[in-house]
Amino acid sequence: MIKKEFKEKYELFKRLAYVIIYGTNTRLGRLFDLVLLALITVSVIMVMLETVKGIDHRLHGLLVFMEWIITVFFTIEYILRIISNKKPYRYIFSMYGIIDLISILPMYLSFITPYTKAISVVRALRLLRIFRILDLVTFMNQGEELKMALRASRNKIIVFVYFVLVISILLGSLMYVIEKHQNGFTSIPRSIYWCIVTLTTVGYGDISPSTTLGQLVAAVVMILGYGIIAVPTGIVTAEYTKVSRANILKEEEMNYREEIAQREKKIICNHCGNTQHLPDAKYCSECGHLLIEKRIDAAQT
Amino acid sequence: MIKKEFKEKYELFKRLAYVIIYGTNTRLGRLFDLVLLALITVSVIMVMLETVKGIDHRLHGLLVFMEWIITVFFTIEYILRIISNKKPYRYIFSMYGIIDLISILPMYLSFITPYTKAISVVRALRLLRIFRILDLVTFMNQGEELKMALRASRNKIIVFVYFVLVISILLGSLMYVIEKHQNGFTSIPRSIYWCIVTLTTVGYGDISPSTTLGQLVAAVVMILGYGIIAVPTGIVTAEYTKVSRANILKEEEMNYREEIAQREKKIICNHCGNTQHLPDAKYCSECGHLLIEKRIDAAQT
Amino acid sequence: MIKKEFKEKYELFKRLAYVIIYGTNTRLGRLFDLVLLALITVSVIMVMLETVKGIDHRLHGLLVFMEWIITVFFTIEYILRIISNKKPYRYIFSMYGIIDLISILPMYLSFITPYTKAISVVRALRLLRIFRILDLVTFMNQGEELKMALRASRNKIIVFVYFVLVISILLGSLMYVIEKHQNGFTSIPRSIYWCIVTLTTVGYGDISPSTTLGQLVAAVVMILGYGIIAVPTGIVTAEYTKVSRANILKEEEMNYREEIAQREKKIICNHCGNTQHLPDAKYCSECGHLLIEKRIDAAQT
Amino acid sequence: MIKKEFKEKYELFKRLAYVIIYGTNTRLGRLFDLVLLALITVSVIMVMLETVKGIDHRLHGLLVFMEWIITVFFTIEYILRIISNKKPYRYIFSMYGIIDLISILPMYLSFITPYTKAISVVRALRLLRIFRILDLVTFMNQGEELKMALRASRNKIIVFVYFVLVISILLGSLMYVIEKHQNGFTSIPRSIYWCIVTLTTVGYGDISPSTTLGQLVAAVVMILGYGIIAVPTGIVTAEYTKVSRANILKEEEMNYREEIAQREKKIICNHCGNTQHLPDAKYCSECGHLLIEKRIDAAQT
Repeated sequence: MIKKEFKEKYELFKRLAYVIIYGTNTRLGRLFDLVLLALITVSVIMVMLETVKGIDHRLHGLLVFMEWIITVFFTIEYILRIISNKKPYRYIFSMYGIIDLISILPMYLSFITPYTKAISVVRALRLLRIFRILDLVTFMNQGEELKMALRASRNKIIVFVYFVLVISILLGSLMYVIEKHQNGFTSIPRSIYWCIVTLTTVGYGDISPSTTLGQLVAAVVMILGYGIIAVPTGIVTAEYTKVSRANILKEEEMNYREEIAQREKKIICNHCGNTQHLPDAKYCSECGHLLIEKRIDAAQT
Repeated sequence: MIKKEFKEKYELFKRLAYVIIYGTNTRLGRLFDLVLLALITVSVIMVMLETVKGIDHRLHGLLVFMEWIITVFFTIEYILRIISNKKPYRYIFSMYGIIDLISILPMYLSFITPYTKAISVVRALRLLRIFRILDLVTFMNQGEELKMALRASRNKIIVFVYFVLVISILLGSLMYVIEKHQNGFTSIPRSIYWCIVTLTTVGYGDISPSTTLGQLVAAVVMILGYGIIAVPTGIVTAEYTKVSRANILKEEEMNYREEIAQREKKIICNHCGNTQHLPDAKYCSECGHLLIEKRIDAAQT
Repeated sequence: MIKKEFKEKYELFKRLAYVIIYGTNTRLGRLFDLVLLALITVSVIMVMLETVKGIDHRLHGLLVFMEWIITVFFTIEYILRIISNKKPYRYIFSMYGIIDLISILPMYLSFITPYTKAISVVRALRLLRIFRILDLVTFMNQGEELKMALRASRNKIIVFVYFVLVISILLGSLMYVIEKHQNGFTSIPRSIYWCIVTLTTVGYGDISPSTTLGQLVAAVVMILGYGIIAVPTGIVTAEYTKVSRANILKEEEMNYREEIAQREKKIICNHCGNTQHLPDAKYCSECGHLLIEKRIDAAQT
Repeated sequence: MIKKEFKEKYELFKRLAYVIIYGTNTRLGRLFDLVLLALITVSVIMVMLETVKGIDHRLHGLLVFMEWIITVFFTIEYILRIISNKKPYRYIFSMYGIIDLISILPMYLSFITPYTKAISVVRALRLLRIFRILDLVTFMNQGEELKMALRASRNKIIVFVYFVLVISILLGSLMYVIEKHQNGFTSIPRSIYWCIVTLTTVGYGDISPSTTLGQLVAAVVMILGYGIIAVPTGIVTAEYTKVSRANILKEEEMNYREEIAQREKKIICNHCGNTQHLPDAKYCSECGHLLIEKRIDAAQT
């Protein structure tokens, strides 16, 4: 008897947990999501602060203590997510499930080796959960068009990046020869690194040409980089415009069809009741009778 | 008697002040706005020069003297704006009202503490007043489309910036581990700072990787940054094109409807009721009868 | 007699000079333009080389000699342009006329003061003459659309640049306060300079924040700069698309009108010869006669 | 007899080699292409590694050995490409043929002079062969639109680059005068180099102005560069949108024409010749007669 009662309560608890954790429609569900997001943010900031020497010195104890609290909370949440879900495996092996596991593991592994703690910053990935919460409210449509545009331009972007890499290999090697292995151009990989730094207009300045010929080639690389940035921008813009216009056209067509439907409704054959006529038809297309209503209609409007 | 006369004069003064200070239609109103803009520009430049040691040394007295003159002028203007306005609270708590107050306060507060003086550069915000003056003349339409486009793309831009931040946290932490806390990557926040510097293609060079693996990751970050700059550009461009085209279409549709309306008004056959005629038809295209109405209509227009 | 003959020859010479110098249709005219462009390029390169110490040392004599030859040639060309032109003042005070004069003056003024010689690099402006030559052949249409787009977006770009400047003044001053006048932020103008360097994603690294708060603000400035680059790009792209589509639509409309004209030609009233009918008219709109040809026409097609 | 048999076998071998090397339809052909790509990638990486001192020290023997193997393989491939091709000269003097030759030559020439080895990085150009393999499968259409857009905007981009160069020469020279030949602005070519570095927003920081006037001009250059990047982006985007829309319109028009053709084929009233009917009309909308043809037509389709 007690066992059954317990089981019933457990089932209720599971259902409740599911609604709160996975759902976003109830007030408690939304509150839970917000608290979770806040905790994720706090935990990410704490991992960061731990690496700042001055702060870590003063607050080491507090930081470690708080991190343990958050980790325990995350662990409980993880377990609840598994037991409340009807298909737990689908959650465990989903992207979010794996991220959630990786977020809590390093803290426990830190007993064995201290180096894994820095990895716990991967819990920043949990911040992506915000899209899950927001998606369902207002950002859904915003992201959808963008995602479609990016998917449509993916292949073109890959071709573009491949092309940029080949150019970087060639021009990087050229600079290695021109600058005679000096001024930071000590090997071809480093020269390629320089070429990417320059082509993407980042320009650290840690490696920079000092021979006249090298500066000439560098100028060419810069103008090239300055110009070809237009390519991915052009692709994304065009695809985005396309997707965005396709949506507008779809809407317009629906409006147009409705309008046509309403217009065609106007003429009704009073012999057979057919409403499918051309706008300027004189005889019913179904039974061949003269359409009288239409005249009246035309006179009325 | 004298009191009443004074009150009348005061009312007149208030109305005049209102027209000159708030209005842009009269010649005096425009002149006032231009003088104000010039003074704002001068005062901003003076605050700047005061921080340049060489110039401040030589011209300290002059600069302070001029700043006091301008501050007094701004104070009088601020008071006039309040008393001439019928709803003074609406001005005081408007964005421009608060900026105006902040612009004059630091100078008076400098009696108490000298540190507030640097804040007086906020009067640069008053330079935004130019939009108020220009808006009403020619720039209005220019800005309107842009504003609409930016408002339409705001949500998408926020999602994008959030995404960039999450990427920066992850890749910054990765570099912190890879570069083994050296070469400037002394803490995760600093590494994230480096990541943003690189992703946005700014590339100061104050922190830059020196290990091969670090340079490889940096190259990935650069190409990523080089590519994803296409996203905000694509969004703004597409939204702007949309808004801009919507306006053109609206205009075109209005022209079209007008044209149709005028055309249809012209000719109705009073024999068969047909309205489908060429604009200059004399006989009905449906029944061959003379079109009489049209003649009258044509004579009228 | 001799005087008259000379005058005739002089007139002929002037007309010939005009055709060769100003014209681009004759073979000699084109050759002259090409030679001129080549000489301008050579002269610009020489002015550059003169400032390179190593090269100037070895070739000083040669460089000066060649520059004098080119200057004399330019002077003769300038005089010919004036005397061969019927309205010499229009040339002298045109943009090209002033550039031409400035290109030759520094060399003569170098007798008096040696410092003006560096100014002779303004003859690089003469390189813009290439647009004159090319415009008339193939680049005309290319540039026209671009020019129209840039003119249409000029006001918006000015508003944008003004906005960027106000932001730079505010954020620059903020950094001056935050970084406590150190790390290169020694004055507000320098801080503003840093802000522009960062906002435009140039990022020299000669001035860069080192406090945590400063780096935070810098990160905001970078992301801001990374984002608002989308604005001018969006404006130019949208305007360019607009201009470019307007041209296409104009063409299409012309084609459409032609097509309509040809279609309407098909129905000819064999009573009055009128060809202006609705496509499905049964009676002539001009004389009210039955349109027989149309039936035949419909049967034929 | 043996000679003939050998010749036959040789012919067969040549045909087989042709299918495998040039073809991408057979499984062996695809495998060959993939192996080739892998080998090219390996060889490029090896040339790079050879220039890294640490790695070259340890693995010099291995790297040289492997490079010889790959070079021999490439040589055999090159010979096979020539003998299996019916028009060998067309291959030899094609872009790919020349790249293939340059890829193997440096290794053989390294017997004579060791400096040519660095050139063997040109075999990175062979990586472009990937487009050949991919083109035929999925990337073809992707690249086609992009190529058309780039070709359409080529002239405009050339004009733009020319313009940027002229601006760089003028502003570079200006800075040379302003910064009084100091702070890295030691010659006009170096100043022009700085101007390009700044205009393209690369910003190394190896040369940067330190006078106030110089920083002012630099700020102008930066904002200029920040703004004019909009131009190539705008051009490519607009052209790409144009090409992309032209393709969509072409498709739509074809669909529309087909639809119209099918519709019109269906119904012709054989009493009055009217062809304007609803798709499923039974009686003519113009004269009320039964539509017989349509029934037959409908029965046929």
